[in-house]
Amino acid sequence: MESKLNRSVSSTIGWITTTRIEALSDGVFAIAMTLMIFNIKVPQIPSERVAAELTRRLLDLWPHFLVYLISFAMAGVYWVGHHNQYHHIRRTNRVLLWINIALLLCVTLIPFSTALLGSYPTHQGAVVLYATNLILVGLVLFIHWHYATSQHALVDPDLDPELIRLASRRILMGPALLALAIVFSFVSTQGSLVLCGVVPVLYILPGRIDRYWKPTSSE
Amino acid sequence: MESKLNRSVSSTIGWITTTRIEALSDGVFAIAMTLMIFNIKVPQIPSERVAAELTRRLLDLWPHFLVYLISFAMAGVYWVGHHNQYHHIRRTNRVLLWINIALLLCVTLIPFSTALLGSYPTHQGAVVLYATNLILVGLVLFIHWHYATSQHALVDPDLDPELIRLASRRILMGPALLALAIVFSFVSTQGSLVLCGVVPVLYILPGRIDRYWKPTSSE
Amino acid sequence: MESKLNRSVSSTIGWITTTRIEALSDGVFAIAMTLMIFNIKVPQIPSERVAAELTRRLLDLWPHFLVYLISFAMAGVYWVGHHNQYHHIRRTNRVLLWINIALLLCVTLIPFSTALLGSYPTHQGAVVLYATNLILVGLVLFIHWHYATSQHALVDPDLDPELIRLASRRILMGPALLALAIVFSFVSTQGSLVLCGVVPVLYILPGRIDRYWKPTSSE
Amino acid sequence: MESKLNRSVSSTIGWITTTRIEALSDGVFAIAMTLMIFNIKVPQIPSERVAAELTRRLLDLWPHFLVYLISFAMAGVYWVGHHNQYHHIRRTNRVLLWINIALLLCVTLIPFSTALLGSYPTHQGAVVLYATNLILVGLVLFIHWHYATSQHALVDPDLDPELIRLASRRILMGPALLALAIVFSFVSTQGSLVLCGVVPVLYILPGRIDRYWKPTSSE
Repeated sequence: MESKLNRSVSSTIGWITTTRIEALSDGVFAIAMTLMIFNIKVPQIPSERVAAELTRRLLDLWPHFLVYLISFAMAGVYWVGHHNQYHHIRRTNRVLLWINIALLLCVTLIPFSTALLGSYPTHQGAVVLYATNLILVGLVLFIHWHYATSQHALVDPDLDPELIRLASRRILMGPALLALAIVFSFVSTQGSLVLCGVVPVLYILPGRIDRYWKPTSSE
Repeated sequence: MESKLNRSVSSTIGWITTTRIEALSDGVFAIAMTLMIFNIKVPQIPSERVAAELTRRLLDLWPHFLVYLISFAMAGVYWVGHHNQYHHIRRTNRVLLWINIALLLCVTLIPFSTALLGSYPTHQGAVVLYATNLILVGLVLFIHWHYATSQHALVDPDLDPELIRLASRRILMGPALLALAIVFSFVSTQGSLVLCGVVPVLYILPGRIDRYWKPTSSE
Repeated sequence: MESKLNRSVSSTIGWITTTRIEALSDGVFAIAMTLMIFNIKVPQIPSERVAAELTRRLLDLWPHFLVYLISFAMAGVYWVGHHNQYHHIRRTNRVLLWINIALLLCVTLIPFSTALLGSYPTHQGAVVLYATNLILVGLVLFIHWHYATSQHALVDPDLDPELIRLASRRILMGPALLALAIVFSFVSTQGSLVLCGVVPVLYILPGRIDRYWKPTSSE
Repeated sequence: MESKLNRSVSSTIGWITTTRIEALSDGVFAIAMTLMIFNIKVPQIPSERVAAELTRRLLDLWPHFLVYLISFAMAGVYWVGHHNQYHHIRRTNRVLLWINIALLLCVTLIPFSTALLGSYPTHQGAVVLYATNLILVGLVLFIHWHYATSQHALVDPDLDPELIRLASRRILMGPALLALAIVFSFVSTQGSLVLCGVVPVLYILPGRIDRYWKPTSSE
């Protein structure tokens, strides 16, 4: 265990560390996830009609809350993925920083897509834009992992290649299903939305990659 | 003291650490707590009527500020609870991450419930939704603690079972009282709100759990 | 130097550390400071009148920008004070956490007071509310420092009592001057605002406390 | 490597560390970058005209998204610069803290300039204000670096003077080009905007400074 720790430390000293890019990313994710709720406005009703109308007006907001739930879960999925990548990434460089900033750019667009789809949940164009945004985040996250791990450039030299492959495949599952949701939206926008909602569930379920979350018994 | 530190370190190495879930959580709590104030709008009054109307219009905002105060305090209560839990939690896994993300989802809904109750403080439905939101946060926080500590899965093996029990009971006190507030809202919405305001006060007062905040004398 | 470090470490182990309250506070300060700008709205002008009106409409916003500048600087002053306090505070407890949360509550009110004063810069009531808000932050910050240092409860046992006194006096300078600004607002709201603007300048200038920012030569 | 680490540690102990100013800065950058998107509003269209109008109304938003892209990239450029500076800065003092807070003030103005230019992309005054804001951020970042490194005041004593020079020149490239964009705006606002968009690209491309991102072979 000692030597493993030493190796990790020695692969960090002198390099630009990952602390601050993780802090910036955590900030952007936290803000995007929290602020989406501010796009859902409390209905303003004159006091004499509150008793009659408030409940119905709140129920009318359900598409907003539904899309909010999916967006929050997908942001969570991508945050967990980002977190896991930096569990293995030891140092950073200019290219990785900018791939990460591109990732954050795509994440900040999610509140816009979410508000759009919440306002027009039956409009196919809104569904397509929404799914495209989520696909973009996933693809940039894939590029991020691919760049960091190819020839073990920014990870520990002994990182298991099997883990690298498993993680890559896992990241691409989301964009693939969301692309399917776009195709499906030409048939049924409702069915397409259901498919979007299934994606985070698949990521939340345990996967084969989970055994890499704990120390191997040999250590 | 040395050996205690070593045990803590050895129960962390190789596992996914809790640093980033704490950072994301701190971000979401900080944003939700700070942004609620942006739902309270400065009254816009034509300049010739400012002198006559501004004071009264500001005083009209009092329900917003009162609900803001309760929400801020409850968010503080839950943040302190979250903070204390991670004082003992040593490592994380997929399930705990997702329980935490569910917790954050419930936290981000607080600004909406707060704006709703601030707009309609005498409407029973608004009181019920508000209390339900706060109950949800508390229940997920309880599940979070229960999952992390059952069979000492993610905490130190020698964590005092008495502390685990005390903390569980303490977390559930809030949801229990808030459920009472919901029942009471059928009689009086004002009384129900008073009860909601008492809950954070009970948490702020010192409790039996506080002796676990400092090192035991035997160390 | 070694032994100083050891003493610091031993006064931390087993206690609740200050990392997360600092993180939550940094988050709240950062959000309050950044979001005030979102209360200043870009003027919406029909395209045929943009050339004629935009410059004048932007210049009309100057009270908002002026108050923004003062608020940002005062938030900076209080953040620097908070930062300096935690440079010396080694551990935390329930009471300190809640004093800190009360501090953050007062900080989150600054954007509201700022928007109010930006909208009604010549209205005495707005000036009084604004200064009162800033006074509150300062007083809670003083209570925070007083609680942490009395009988060296939460700081290193050998922290210089002279530093404790100097810092206390320095914190109270702001609230004292702002109280003067409130009194002065009965004579002239403009003069009162000038006084508010002088306060952060006094804090930014170097002070006697600065020699505690570097290691003493004896170490 | 050992001794290098020791030197770094010994130049930190007893001084005010940079952790929290980095945390506050990361927070402000993250919020400014994420919140700009909330200035782009989803078009509100009556349901019977959605099919006919939504696509066109979304396309009408393109200037907003274009300016958003430039602002996000420039914020990223300045954040990377800030990050790199603190890779070398070992300790802080009152002056550096306040230069940093002035930097953050300029950063928080970016969302306002962005919304202004997004609303009036062909108005020369909006272009000038926008470029001026970005220039200000760059100049304060230069002052920040200059202050920290002159006589190696707040950096390691053996920091390569060549790196200090290279970094200074690199920081000033942006403000110089943006000043050119202001001059050019008197001829063509469109050409001026193109120039603004080129600046972040130049920073993203690899530069001579990149060899300082990794440990020198002699270590």
